[in-house]
Amino acid sequence: MSRLLFFTFVAVVIAVGALGFAAPERPSTEGMALPQYDGEGALLLPREYHEWVFVGASMGLSYSDKDRHDGPGSFHNVYMQPEAYRYYKATGEFPEQTMFVMTNYAPSQKSEIVRSGYFEGKLVGLEVALLDNDRFEDKWAYYNFSSREGLRETAKPFPRFACWDCHAEHGEDDNVFVQYYPTLRRLKR
Amino acid sequence: MSRLLFFTFVAVVIAVGALGFAAPERPSTEGMALPQYDGEGALLLPREYHEWVFVGASMGLSYSDKDRHDGPGSFHNVYMQPEAYRYYKATGEFPEQTMFVMTNYAPSQKSEIVRSGYFEGKLVGLEVALLDNDRFEDKWAYYNFSSREGLRETAKPFPRFACWDCHAEHGEDDNVFVQYYPTLRRLKR
Repeated sequence: MSRLLFFTFVAVVIAVGALGFAAPERPSTEGMALPQYDGEGALLLPREYHEWVFVGASMGLSYSDKDRHDGPGSFHNVYMQPEAYRYYKATGEFPEQTMFVMTNYAPSQKSEIVRSGYFEGKLVGLEVALLDNDRFEDKWAYYNFSSREGLRETAKPFPRFACWDCHAEHGEDDNVFVQYYPTLRRLKR
Repeated sequence: MSRLLFFTFVAVVIAVGALGFAAPERPSTEGMALPQYDGEGALLLPREYHEWVFVGASMGLSYSDKDRHDGPGSFHNVYMQPEAYRYYKATGEFPEQTMFVMTNYAPSQKSEIVRSGYFEGKLVGLEVALLDNDRFEDKWAYYNFSSREGLRETAKPFPRFACWDCHAEHGEDDNVFVQYYPTLRRLKR
């Protein structure tokens, strides 16, 4: 009987240990830059993304035949908060208040030494994807701060059909196009 | 006479204050990721650059007519240590042991939703520029970890004519192509 008790004890120890290993460690997001809003609930233009984690660039991406263009199209750079990156790296999930900032640079070739190809010229746009279950019915919202006169100081979310549907259908992880971002894609191997 | 002493005192206070304002604050680079070498002095492949500060992307850049290509060419993403970025932001100078890592991604179009343009596909190369006055006669050295079989674990510096001369002649700041990197370029305004 004491032998049965001993084996039961051993089995419980093993089971608890396995549970401990299985549960992903959730890093703290304390200190993460959070979205800021004005009095009317419009999102303020994020300014501190330059030191965030860069997840990938693209050039001339277009999601509809309408937007086809003759030139190379513009550069998109995508950044996220370092704390959200580390949380995703540890858990495979995006934490509340994750923000993706996408900058839009015009392609430039003016240079005495570059014989072909493009570097990033003028900043012409900035968009944001934001995860907030408390604030948004659909969990994620999408904002565009671009205008012909330069970046706007505030933006309101797009209606659902404009961005959300395509992100939800085609984003590899939770509305996010992880498949296009090499820095996130490599974490899934 | 006491009046003369008083004005002398005021002038000294003003002069010292002006000097204080004029001298740029030099942020500490403590904790900065440093280059690592093997026993033969070859640089080890940097692995932790994903969370460094991204300074800019380019596509298909080529510095000679020989390298012209028909396709869009590859994506280059350039990163530097956060501590080196903050030092440059505060002083306009790059600190000792500044490293720039440049990744090289093949362009990719395989996607059900993208109708045009390119995102970053397979990682095909990685190069490093490194500032170290003690180690290098010419202050900066350049390394290439790319090979047909994938990234190499170590690399030795290129001879001077291969990279250094062009960087020194055309780099806007201290051998660095700041003019191509929007995240650094904006700090100069």
